[in-house]
Amino acid sequence: MDVLAVLNLSDIAQYFSKMAMFPVFDLAYYIVSILYLKYEPGSVEVSRRSPVASWLCAMLYCFGSYILADIMLGDSPVDYFHNNSHILLATAVWYLVFFCPLNLFYKCVAFLPVKLVLVAMKEVVRTRKIAAGVHHAHHAYHHGWFIMVITGYVKGSGVALMSNFEQLLRGVWRPETNEIMNMSFPTKASLYGAILFTLQESHLLPISKNILICLFTLFMATSKVVLTARHSHGSPFTLIESWVCHLLFGSPLGGSEDSHDHHHSAAVHAAPVSPTKTKEELNEGTRKRKAKKAE
Amino acid sequence: MDVLAVLNLSDIAQYFSKMAMFPVFDLAYYIVSILYLKYEPGSVEVSRRSPVASWLCAMLYCFGSYILADIMLGDSPVDYFHNNSHILLATAVWYLVFFCPLNLFYKCVAFLPVKLVLVAMKEVVRTRKIAAGVHHAHHAYHHGWFIMVITGYVKGSGVALMSNFEQLLRGVWRPETNEIMNMSFPTKASLYGAILFTLQESHLLPISKNILICLFTLFMATSKVVLTARHSHGSPFTLIESWVCHLLFGSPLGGSEDSHDHHHSAAVHAAPVSPTKTKEELNEGTRKRKAKKAE
Amino acid sequence: MDVLAVLNLSDIAQYFSKMAMFPVFDLAYYIVSILYLKYEPGSVEVSRRSPVASWLCAMLYCFGSYILADIMLGDSPVDYFHNNSHILLATAVWYLVFFCPLNLFYKCVAFLPVKLVLVAMKEVVRTRKIAAGVHHAHHAYHHGWFIMVITGYVKGSGVALMSNFEQLLRGVWRPETNEIMNMSFPTKASLYGAILFTLQESHLLPISKNILICLFTLFMATSKVVLTARHSHGSPFTLIESWVCHLLFGSPLGGSEDSHDHHHSAAVHAAPVSPTKTKEELNEGTRKRKAKKAE
Repeated sequence: MDVLAVLNLSDIAQYFSKMAMFPVFDLAYYIVSILYLKYEPGSVEVSRRSPVASWLCAMLYCFGSYILADIMLGDSPVDYFHNNSHILLATAVWYLVFFCPLNLFYKCVAFLPVKLVLVAMKEVVRTRKIAAGVHHAHHAYHHGWFIMVITGYVKGSGVALMSNFEQLLRGVWRPETNEIMNMSFPTKASLYGAILFTLQESHLLPISKNILICLFTLFMATSKVVLTARHSHGSPFTLIESWVCHLLFGSPLGGSEDSHDHHHSAAVHAAPVSPTKTKEELNEGTRKRKAKKAE
Repeated sequence: MDVLAVLNLSDIAQYFSKMAMFPVFDLAYYIVSILYLKYEPGSVEVSRRSPVASWLCAMLYCFGSYILADIMLGDSPVDYFHNNSHILLATAVWYLVFFCPLNLFYKCVAFLPVKLVLVAMKEVVRTRKIAAGVHHAHHAYHHGWFIMVITGYVKGSGVALMSNFEQLLRGVWRPETNEIMNMSFPTKASLYGAILFTLQESHLLPISKNILICLFTLFMATSKVVLTARHSHGSPFTLIESWVCHLLFGSPLGGSEDSHDHHHSAAVHAAPVSPTKTKEELNEGTRKRKAKKAE
Repeated sequence: MDVLAVLNLSDIAQYFSKMAMFPVFDLAYYIVSILYLKYEPGSVEVSRRSPVASWLCAMLYCFGSYILADIMLGDSPVDYFHNNSHILLATAVWYLVFFCPLNLFYKCVAFLPVKLVLVAMKEVVRTRKIAAGVHHAHHAYHHGWFIMVITGYVKGSGVALMSNFEQLLRGVWRPETNEIMNMSFPTKASLYGAILFTLQESHLLPISKNILICLFTLFMATSKVVLTARHSHGSPFTLIESWVCHLLFGSPLGGSEDSHDHHHSAAVHAAPVSPTKTKEELNEGTRKRKAKKAE
């Protein structure tokens, strides 16, 4: 590793971690995010009946992570909205995804090969956001490790963490589940990533930030592309989590997140949380069929 | 226009836009707002069972716009509560509206001619708030047009935008609708007003702020008085909105907000939003009967 | 009083009101708070299925008052989380209460004599928090009496005031009731305490702060210990409240908070609020049985 680092891995990593995100990568982020919004049942009707509510949801999908992080650090929640060009770009994407004639734009970006590239690019942005969130929190609270993890986490997870309230804006209310009780893969990965970046920022992880960004991006992009391509809603963490939960919390082996376990432990009130509830992991086929029907 | 402006329209406008709101106009604002709270089904019972919850709702009705704007700009949400005299005045109005012997105060202010005057005065305050909100945001974010519009919007709409949570305080929960999905006339007008004032503040509208305040107040007061007098829950924007929505979003002509359209587009989950849900537009007669029965 | 104050009451009061809360008293606060979390139906299942959600709820139970007060005063809601040692201590308590082998820790601290001591210590911390909250708000808003009362109130009541949202995190949603509509004894006492401390801070109460802290702590600890020991969910304020509500709001004598009254005034929508809903006042026997069954 050291040899490589001396040679040119560190150069590549530095170049990669300094690369500008706006506009290309951010554009991919907005497209994928608003695509997921369109997959949500009912979102097309909302866009027809109340474009303002739909636009606001789209902005939450694109900038939810900035809004949450600003709230967490006590800044103005609309602070990010002074970046007029970002907002206008996201607005254009929202308009094209929802209102393009013949649904052309949607069909292009939802075409699997195109989508896989966009999904990979979104993960590049996500990793950067986590790193930036942790760094920002580190600047504000020098030894506030918990604050660093929380800020990185909300920066990575974005709208998922406030999905209950985002749904409320569209007239949907599902109190029996939420993203913290049933974390999807990106949310979980954001939490672990935030912990890694916090350790790095506190010099407890003997690795440079640039290289960590590179490696984590690589891991996230690969996982997300594979999961999307296989229409899977699994998670590469299942095995290790099941062991850790067994050791720490005495959960039966098989994983605290295993669907098997869910059915046994008579859930908190309502029906056991069905996999259709997890935002980004839903079988792609079903989603597309739903979205098409909604057209 | 210019000639008039040189003569005395600008003087009148300047005088009008500098006129103090406290206490007379603010008093009218508090009275009308708390009157609308009393019209809400169940609010009289809440005032009997839990005066603290009722008082808190009344404060949200009177100062919701300040609370929301403070949150948006990252200030303390209770910042406005250091104006003890405003709070005490609103508290007195709340007490008189809900607990005055023989319901005398309520009967006086709900008497239509009196109410029309109060409603007109409330619109004077609303316009001022929008202008102040946009100006405040302009001061904090010089080119943050979206932030200026959002701040002006929440300053004008006030409690309506958080009505779901205000209802929750009274034990009522209606997730199937919200003020952004089904904007009432004052909310919509606040949005358009906020856009106008933002354009003016950015020097894109060739008109002085004083005159814009005058004209917008005139428009709002007239519309609101006519709507209240006719017990109507229509909106003067319907025609123009239906054309704009047709052009931009391909909505069928007849207006995206038309009740006809609502019934067709199988709403987002629950029953189609009935007109009884829109806060300020409800038929006055029905409301009064309900409020009387609740006594 | 003056003589006593000159002699040594003031010394004792000063010593008492300067005594460090961390770690002993804070530990008691965390234990009792997380004990109440474990009493909540469904919380044990949540801790098994999603340790992250359970940990977050535990943090809200322990630090909800700081989070709310920080929000009220416009600071970062996670500000308190930079106290790593406090967070780690609360995390350890959470782990022991929920995951200790044989449930030993839970059995020890829920043993009535031990619990009574812990409950009394919790009230010491609560009184200090109210006083600190009022003082902090006084510092920020010199004549903001309402802000001082609100800040003291949220510092004293803590998680109770956001219980609807804390429950949502565990997948439970009970919109028909909330802590403001149906205040439990600690919430009510926090409100009255916040008013007293505000009066003291504004020099309207001719008593030194140290002595007020002493007396209020004494009152709270005694009341809470008696209520806990008698498994009662009453309130020592009932008589005086019923008279004040009769005078001010024309409530029938017998008290606006009397369950008798509740049944008459056809509650706000849903079933009349049953006493099982009030958080901290629930009959201890039933709770323990429930918690044991949940194990």
